[in-house]
Amino acid sequence: MENINKKLTLVGAGPGDPELITLKGARALEKADVVLYDALVDKRLLSYTQPGALRINVGKRRNNHSYSQTEINKMIVYFAKKGRHVVRLKGGDPFVFGRGTEESDYAQAHGIQVETVPGITSAIAVPGAVGIPMTRRGVNHGFAVITATGSNGRLSEDLLQLVKTNIPVVVLMGIHKIEEITALYTSHGKHGLPIAVISKGTTKEEQVVAATVETLLQTVNKDNIESPGIIVIGETVKSGLHYRQWLTDRQQNLEYHEN
Amino acid sequence: MENINKKLTLVGAGPGDPELITLKGARALEKADVVLYDALVDKRLLSYTQPGALRINVGKRRNNHSYSQTEINKMIVYFAKKGRHVVRLKGGDPFVFGRGTEESDYAQAHGIQVETVPGITSAIAVPGAVGIPMTRRGVNHGFAVITATGSNGRLSEDLLQLVKTNIPVVVLMGIHKIEEITALYTSHGKHGLPIAVISKGTTKEEQVVAATVETLLQTVNKDNIESPGIIVIGETVKSGLHYRQWLTDRQQNLEYHEN
Repeated sequence: MENINKKLTLVGAGPGDPELITLKGARALEKADVVLYDALVDKRLLSYTQPGALRINVGKRRNNHSYSQTEINKMIVYFAKKGRHVVRLKGGDPFVFGRGTEESDYAQAHGIQVETVPGITSAIAVPGAVGIPMTRRGVNHGFAVITATGSNGRLSEDLLQLVKTNIPVVVLMGIHKIEEITALYTSHGKHGLPIAVISKGTTKEEQVVAATVETLLQTVNKDNIESPGIIVIGETVKSGLHYRQWLTDRQQNLEYHEN
Repeated sequence: MENINKKLTLVGAGPGDPELITLKGARALEKADVVLYDALVDKRLLSYTQPGALRINVGKRRNNHSYSQTEINKMIVYFAKKGRHVVRLKGGDPFVFGRGTEESDYAQAHGIQVETVPGITSAIAVPGAVGIPMTRRGVNHGFAVITATGSNGRLSEDLLQLVKTNIPVVVLMGIHKIEEITALYTSHGKHGLPIAVISKGTTKEEQVVAATVETLLQTVNKDNIESPGIIVIGETVKSGLHYRQWLTDRQQNLEYHEN
């Protein structure tokens, strides 16, 4: 009984497009007896599983039929202890806002072997898909990714330091804090810095707004951009098509008023 | 002549393991007429190409037979203008220290259609592979990735701000600056913060050293860790096996000296 194979594979599904899972991730799904998947994961990924595999939507991000983290941990251990190969399929990367460590630690504490297959995090891929690179030679040599609020619900203390750097900052879950964020950058004299807001990135409902810190708010109100969205603030935003278009429109508008 | 298909696909190969390319990346290789690949990319990935495809090692990171960025840009345009589907295969992600924007901009300026397939960046995957997550609930809500030096060769100005945050910092190309980096963290009272150095991550020659900021240097000297390496500084390093082992060893050592 003690020698049966007890195995969990944490798999990152990537940013949305089902072709952006890794070969290794797809192969883990092929070998899974049980797949516990997040609500936001594209259901087409489940087609890689064997016909007999158990597929459970643990739907953490939706209110209906949702399981708590504790329940998910227990389900992993329950199935793995029966000798089933459990694949935990998570959006993005398991270790980037994915709570992968919690599941991995819990499983290992119960004698289960854990393997992790990384995924592409949407924090990087969503800006990339609209032409905004994380780094650009001669412009910046690093980047930061952060949620808008800490556990206290207030604007991140870390963001108060990041605003002083020259690296682009990707702010997650920040649409509702966008006034505070642009005010913070303005208070540091960065009103002219490019900023982009990408809603439902890499999906068909994707919306992108780009402007400068001081002009963003009127643009966002106008276009009525929706959560969930990713905000990118920094010089590299200039590389994106939407910023270039905004700049052209603005130039034409200025010329029109001058004539 | 003007209507021929002129196409470039920038593909991220991921952090090393050839199974960590995306399905979309592998499919782009299958459809390539010409593949221009970096020296550090695993050659097994070339097996996805058709037998007739031209495969050129542009080897930017090695001195021998290396092409300049300008030469690579021109090669892309040369082949794409002949109607060949060019795949530019780069380690990690094309937009994370990959100079993808430069190639994309140059190609687009020459009327070439550009598509990008993201890859998993080693900046995140290498720590992840040794159990160090970028975020951990209740510990931190963001992370930063930065090269140790700016274009002037001195320690990054941005790092002087990042040290004041509570987010883990991944420092690339920083082995030669490790004394300055640990001194910087110590000067901010962060001598007890966990730090890990990962050399040749995800390969068979991988070496990992974990300790605290104040104890790292003696450990690194002892184990003679080699470049290129990734440094991770922050509380999440505690989740990794190597830090846990270091802590256990140290505890036993202290107990031995007490008895």
